[in-house]
Amino acid sequence: MKVLPSIHSPQDLRLIKKEHLPTLCQELRDVIIQTASKNGGHLGSSLGAVEIITALHYVYNTPDDQIIFDTGHQAYAHKLLTGRQEEFASIRTKGGLSGFPKRSESKYDSFGAGHASTAVSAALGLAIARDQQKQNHRVIAVVGDGCLTGGMAYEAMQNAGLLRTDMLVILNDNQMFISQRVGALGTALTKLLTAKYVQLAEEKASNFLKRFDELGNNAAKLAKRARSILFPGTLFEEMGFRYFGPVDGNDINALLEVLETLKTVKGPVMLHVVTKKGKGYEPAEKNPTKFHGVGIFDVETGDSLGKSGTVTFTKAFSQALVKLAEQDDKICAITAAMPEGTGLDAFRDKFPARYFDVGIAEEHAATFAAGLAAGGSKPVVALYSTFAQRCYDQILHDICLQKLPVVFALDRAGLVGEDGPTHHGVFDISFLRSIPNLIMAAPADENELQHLLKTAVSSQAPFVLRYPRGAGFGIPLDKELKVLDIGKGSWMTKGKDLTILAIGNRVYPALKAAEQLREKGVDAGVINMRFIKPLDTALIDEALKRTSKLVTVEDNMLAGGFGSAVAEYLVDHHKNAHLLRLGIGDEFVQHGKSALLYDQVGISQSAIVKHILQWKIK
Amino acid sequence: MKVLPSIHSPQDLRLIKKEHLPTLCQELRDVIIQTASKNGGHLGSSLGAVEIITALHYVYNTPDDQIIFDTGHQAYAHKLLTGRQEEFASIRTKGGLSGFPKRSESKYDSFGAGHASTAVSAALGLAIARDQQKQNHRVIAVVGDGCLTGGMAYEAMQNAGLLRTDMLVILNDNQMFISQRVGALGTALTKLLTAKYVQLAEEKASNFLKRFDELGNNAAKLAKRARSILFPGTLFEEMGFRYFGPVDGNDINALLEVLETLKTVKGPVMLHVVTKKGKGYEPAEKNPTKFHGVGIFDVETGDSLGKSGTVTFTKAFSQALVKLAEQDDKICAITAAMPEGTGLDAFRDKFPARYFDVGIAEEHAATFAAGLAAGGSKPVVALYSTFAQRCYDQILHDICLQKLPVVFALDRAGLVGEDGPTHHGVFDISFLRSIPNLIMAAPADENELQHLLKTAVSSQAPFVLRYPRGAGFGIPLDKELKVLDIGKGSWMTKGKDLTILAIGNRVYPALKAAEQLREKGVDAGVINMRFIKPLDTALIDEALKRTSKLVTVEDNMLAGGFGSAVAEYLVDHHKNAHLLRLGIGDEFVQHGKSALLYDQVGISQSAIVKHILQWKIK
Repeated sequence: MKVLPSIHSPQDLRLIKKEHLPTLCQELRDVIIQTASKNGGHLGSSLGAVEIITALHYVYNTPDDQIIFDTGHQAYAHKLLTGRQEEFASIRTKGGLSGFPKRSESKYDSFGAGHASTAVSAALGLAIARDQQKQNHRVIAVVGDGCLTGGMAYEAMQNAGLLRTDMLVILNDNQMFISQRVGALGTALTKLLTAKYVQLAEEKASNFLKRFDELGNNAAKLAKRARSILFPGTLFEEMGFRYFGPVDGNDINALLEVLETLKTVKGPVMLHVVTKKGKGYEPAEKNPTKFHGVGIFDVETGDSLGKSGTVTFTKAFSQALVKLAEQDDKICAITAAMPEGTGLDAFRDKFPARYFDVGIAEEHAATFAAGLAAGGSKPVVALYSTFAQRCYDQILHDICLQKLPVVFALDRAGLVGEDGPTHHGVFDISFLRSIPNLIMAAPADENELQHLLKTAVSSQAPFVLRYPRGAGFGIPLDKELKVLDIGKGSWMTKGKDLTILAIGNRVYPALKAAEQLREKGVDAGVINMRFIKPLDTALIDEALKRTSKLVTVEDNMLAGGFGSAVAEYLVDHHKNAHLLRLGIGDEFVQHGKSALLYDQVGISQSAIVKHILQWKIK
Repeated sequence: MKVLPSIHSPQDLRLIKKEHLPTLCQELRDVIIQTASKNGGHLGSSLGAVEIITALHYVYNTPDDQIIFDTGHQAYAHKLLTGRQEEFASIRTKGGLSGFPKRSESKYDSFGAGHASTAVSAALGLAIARDQQKQNHRVIAVVGDGCLTGGMAYEAMQNAGLLRTDMLVILNDNQMFISQRVGALGTALTKLLTAKYVQLAEEKASNFLKRFDELGNNAAKLAKRARSILFPGTLFEEMGFRYFGPVDGNDINALLEVLETLKTVKGPVMLHVVTKKGKGYEPAEKNPTKFHGVGIFDVETGDSLGKSGTVTFTKAFSQALVKLAEQDDKICAITAAMPEGTGLDAFRDKFPARYFDVGIAEEHAATFAAGLAAGGSKPVVALYSTFAQRCYDQILHDICLQKLPVVFALDRAGLVGEDGPTHHGVFDISFLRSIPNLIMAAPADENELQHLLKTAVSSQAPFVLRYPRGAGFGIPLDKELKVLDIGKGSWMTKGKDLTILAIGNRVYPALKAAEQLREKGVDAGVINMRFIKPLDTALIDEALKRTSKLVTVEDNMLAGGFGSAVAEYLVDHHKNAHLLRLGIGDEFVQHGKSALLYDQVGISQSAIVKHILQWKIK
């Protein structure tokens, strides 16, 4: 007799006996594992957080009480317990549930997420709004230990410590956030988190509140000080939080007890719980990094079932960087907690002394790189495009204004597929191309990526390389890397009727579109523009000598994007040109398979053909 | 006999006897006060940091040893001691010295600044680059207490604590950063910083190192723990720093002694010094907020000598917000440590419970506001345009993606004058207009600002208002505020030959330019476009019915800016239009009086006339 199917909402959950909760947690895990094996997703952290989520919905009166998940990839159990069991099989598919909390999806999703370190800020805002409206529900933020490497979490904790409103922050410490633990804070926590210590701490925590009441004010202060020596929460206490823990976050009974107790504590409270990433699924427990975010896999063995074979852009970058670093010991590499995702793991293993994982801290990553460059090193910062949004000011103010030669390798530029709108890297061209002194390029394929990386490292200038998620186009990788001409594109094929100016991963689809168009009697040329900035205006001029009709194709927003740069050039210099711009219109693109999304926004091969044929008709 | 004139470089400084240093500091102060009274500038913090800077150049071997100033507005004494005495009178004027450290200005300026909280990141980068190149110079970051409210400083300190390279961070605690102290950390420091405490701490600090040597390893650990109770540095110790202090940072002898001692301490070290903002100039000591950044003033009295009379945009915003908040108690206001600069001081004084100064923490400010909005409040976030660059991702990911009704009042949009390239707000249109769901407007004058603020607060949508620094156009302020049509501009005057589409503070100069053009036989119409997004394309269509010639004028980058949005519309829909785009080209604009800069970049009244006449000639 299963428990989960009878739970259609947290109200149902709160009716059942405590004794059934461990069984329920097991059932939640089973569904999560089965579903992730089919749809891919963030398995490890969702497994680790099952008890926390179950306990929170059991103890608190959701949705009146509000739970805010940091980053949000740990919230699968939350979706299953809040009326979304039936749709759960659709998670991360087009039109289905999002892989992250989403306000428009459920009233239980108090605040959306995707990027890290935002939950304390959002929870504080919700708590203050509650106070102002004289409501009295509770606000709880669930924050991974990795998120505490992000500076905005500190900004928020300091502010919460000052405002002293009632809120609970659950520090879900899985001792291994996205990759390996970094940051001095992490080290301090690790030191203290032996199993024995956790036990001891639990006892002390449960006794602490009673003691607190018995003691007078001064005595309480002394007790607090003494605690700060015994407990690892000094840092949080300094910021104005009352700190409790650590407790075992995979022990549902321990959690229920401490959460009930904490209900009476006023002001900002931090509860430190220790969980195991991948808990309850052996392959994920053994290899938490691999199972942080997975594609489809075999549940029995944990083996990936996804396509393989074609070299990814990430892999091409990874190999090329190692090759370059072998020849130049000034090259160093920086990641913001994504060594595997960005492919910097190869560099790390080969050149550990030149490798820096700064935590989920893109702001620091960029300015740290600026300092390295000012000191004569050659830093390459590898980020996902969407996370580079976090260091826009640092790229502008610390790097480009000072013309410091920092290379940004922006992986996952363009549409990323199943992770959806919080993760699509479709804004980078728009927010970066207005920055002076910056060079910005996008390789057409994995081989060109190699050469552009060498070009970037040799350029002595701030240089952004953007390239997409996933497999390349099967182009063989040249052994010898070469420096390309900065600001120069090249013809892929010439045509009499119009010229497609394509950038990055849209070059090959444009080329195939041109083939199709030729069959339909339209003779379309294709240029691999390669550089967004500086724009190859000489090549555009050349194209215009053949035909006044140009089409731009990009996997970026149309507003301010690559096609916008071409439009600027045309109106400034070529009044008689005709331009059709294909790219992403003025709305957030939802989640789903990339191929479907490319079609939907109109930049897949077939969509390019369709739009061009329609344009000609006009 | 003066000391300062004989010091042409820090080498000269290091030759003179210690006894002369207090006199030198007095002379430095005199020059700083006299110069700031004529040129304006950041007086208070520069006066407070005189002894720190003198001591650093005396003890360390600059420029081999590298000093990095956070924010950089405290570095006037540094400029005077590093061979820039003669040019100092030119500070903040066009072609003269910058008000901030600048790598291109001097080899002593190891890293440029302007925005807060970057120095530890940059210093860590310089220190690691040093290590990698097997050099052995020292790296020192000078960081104000206010900068520690910014999250990236924590990111950097955590990373420094992990990497354990040798570096010194001087926490210059002037107990009153840009405005009033905020954040729980600030409160903790204040509690401990009585004069008596500082004395006691000095004694202990000078004894501490000796004790440290005498004690064995375990004993040393115990001593460290004991210290963490007595001293306020626990937080920094948790992050992996060795903490010393606090010492009196305006006592040059105390500083020399402790800096010499610290030379032998390895790893990341934090020295906490307490200084007085405005030290040595009575009006500034008494009113540090006013003298943080000043215009010209009378040295005897401290009275401002600047022009007054015309209501500033800031003032119009300030009054309008109070007026709106009187009628709607859901309105709340958020500043990132700039209550006076943004005009939120009036709101703070009237509605303290709805006012939030979050510290120099724009990331948190934005997501905190998102939380408030999700909870049903109506937050208005008042920032300078240039600092909004810090929360680009939060505006996109936390606010616009969730369509949360947060209003951003971006003051100092456009060219800001003397503060120069780190502070010009000339990127906001380019980085914001590609974000879906966002409304963006720029009032033509101070009266329209009032109405647009009401429009924004009523809009139920993410809404950015951008307006310039300084005086308005002397337009009377309507008593009654009204809601304007979103996305609608209006004709200022019609013309047969061309139409100028102007945005924000360029509307009136465009109107005057049109008058001048009429005298020269060119009949130019002018439209106040008012909204950047949504763009009033119907009005553009209307303009094109009169004449195919359009001119856009904006105080933003041409790349991706307002004119770019118009260019996109024209190429997408009106192939036969002719467009001249006036705005800022692809380079950073240096410092100087705004009027001169408007001329230089080509968007002043006379420059508009000139460019249009030249365009017609083509």
